[in-house]
Amino acid sequence: MWLPNAPRRVRINEVSVRDGFQIEPEFIPTEQKIALIDRLSETGLARIEITSFVSPKAIPNLRDAQAVAKSIRRHPGVVYTALVPNARGCERALECDMDEINLVMSASETHNLANMRMTCEQSLEQFRSVMQLARSGDLAVSGCVATAFGCPFEGEIAPEQVKWAASRYLELGMDSITLADTTGMADPRQVSELVEAFLGWFPGVPLTLHFHNTRGMGLANVLAGLAAGVNSFDASLGGLGGCPCAGRDREHLHGRSCAHAGGVRHRHRCRLGPAAWRGARAASAGRTRHFRAGGQGRQEHRPPSRAGLGRREINAHQPAETQGETPS
Amino acid sequence: MWLPNAPRRVRINEVSVRDGFQIEPEFIPTEQKIALIDRLSETGLARIEITSFVSPKAIPNLRDAQAVAKSIRRHPGVVYTALVPNARGCERALECDMDEINLVMSASETHNLANMRMTCEQSLEQFRSVMQLARSGDLAVSGCVATAFGCPFEGEIAPEQVKWAASRYLELGMDSITLADTTGMADPRQVSELVEAFLGWFPGVPLTLHFHNTRGMGLANVLAGLAAGVNSFDASLGGLGGCPCAGRDREHLHGRSCAHAGGVRHRHRCRLGPAAWRGARAASAGRTRHFRAGGQGRQEHRPPSRAGLGRREINAHQPAETQGETPS
Repeated sequence: MWLPNAPRRVRINEVSVRDGFQIEPEFIPTEQKIALIDRLSETGLARIEITSFVSPKAIPNLRDAQAVAKSIRRHPGVVYTALVPNARGCERALECDMDEINLVMSASETHNLANMRMTCEQSLEQFRSVMQLARSGDLAVSGCVATAFGCPFEGEIAPEQVKWAASRYLELGMDSITLADTTGMADPRQVSELVEAFLGWFPGVPLTLHFHNTRGMGLANVLAGLAAGVNSFDASLGGLGGCPCAGRDREHLHGRSCAHAGGVRHRHRCRLGPAAWRGARAASAGRTRHFRAGGQGRQEHRPPSRAGLGRREINAHQPAETQGETPS
Repeated sequence: MWLPNAPRRVRINEVSVRDGFQIEPEFIPTEQKIALIDRLSETGLARIEITSFVSPKAIPNLRDAQAVAKSIRRHPGVVYTALVPNARGCERALECDMDEINLVMSASETHNLANMRMTCEQSLEQFRSVMQLARSGDLAVSGCVATAFGCPFEGEIAPEQVKWAASRYLELGMDSITLADTTGMADPRQVSELVEAFLGWFPGVPLTLHFHNTRGMGLANVLAGLAAGVNSFDASLGGLGGCPCAGRDREHLHGRSCAHAGGVRHRHRCRLGPAAWRGARAASAGRTRHFRAGGQGRQEHRPPSRAGLGRREINAHQPAETQGETPS
């Protein structure tokens, strides 16, 4: 049987607008960002990371974070999230009425120093004040463990290091965890083993996987994640983006490619659910298509579990307990 | 458990010298071809397709087929194979004392016409005379079903079409079958389903998979093949090569990448067997390393099932019955 433990429905989370645009050398006009996000919102994606509430000096291309966040058309089925480095960023996210914020720390101390210019403990201290603000404002918080599958400076990352980081996140009250292969070092066997361990350590905690395609291994890793029961994957329009500290290549995965890896080449062969198929297929630069949730002829394809859900529902509507659901 | 049906040992078959070099615009000097094959022979590869016994007019870069075949150093553990289009090619292969020949026909009639300039029935008629010669000379014959996962002209290829082609091959007495995704259209689900069907139709017939990485799906497809129990994969040094009739991109897979897809990033994590690991890891342009089978310090890694085997052993020493062998 094909992937007996794979979930029936898969969530594709689009990260291009933040993770991709942040390293573009030319400023991308605010109205273009908004137009793109609005189109992405119509494609069936589960979540869109729209910007980063960081210092404009640190990331000039995202200096319009608030303008973007306040001007996009919010789609009721989509979770809008943004990266936040500290309490000040969280305040801005609250002002902009974000659904969720995303906090990032590396499992590797060395990479965290290079990427965030602070130790892991300093990152966690920042996150503590962020969490207080987030809770006061009813803001969901996702914690990303960067370099979870390997570090360009330290090499292999022990699973216990990932466990430690995720434990600290959950102690702080974060709602979900992303394991990121920041530099594309993961292999499918490692993915399988780390996911299996994670689900044992943290049953019920929503898990997302974030891969890069540095060695052409991205889709094989998605397949291993699906086989292990993971139902949420990051993807990036056109493969844009990557960590500035990740060395040479940092290519992301297409959402469409992620869907293909799950065997979704032709719609009629798809058992991942039409919304996942639509989202994944559409999340590709040249092929973004409009699937209007409320529009005629498409209504019947709206995923019932997500239709009409608003903010803060991300962790409720797809708990990790359902991840091992057997395909029909 | 990680890939419970995957084989313990995987064979990597190098195709760059034929499938890669045949479309290079510049002639590659004979001595360079020989030197490369001799180095490849030391890496633990199971099989090397060294040339094509076709008309020099059809493929000028392989006009030195006989010189190459007669000058390489034969390694006792390696099967040396060559593509043969017709009886004349088979005669040349016999003259050169090849271990095996490789016959190719497309599952798609349209692609066969474009690629071979004959109908499938005409191809099979050629193969009939080739088989008579091969049998008289004790030459193993492998049959490749091109476009088994999709055709650039016809689109989807029905599994029954693949079954038909493989059945005809086996009726003619061929010893093993390769299913080739000539243009990179396969997805992992399709691989899983077609392999499962194949093993049901033809139990005991040695099966090799040949993928391209056109859509970045190559290694995910290898993973699906491993999961289904396949123990033999084609790979190409540096990803060289591709079918001239395959449209734009035709990139092959690295052997090293194939090994990575199986989770073989670090030697100590490898459960595919050291020879497969060595072969796969070494079969990459910048990293080809010498592992001398008879040399000191490496002897213990020699795969016992292949050590000392000569020609015609390819189908005996790894029958398909062992493909589902559970890893230790």
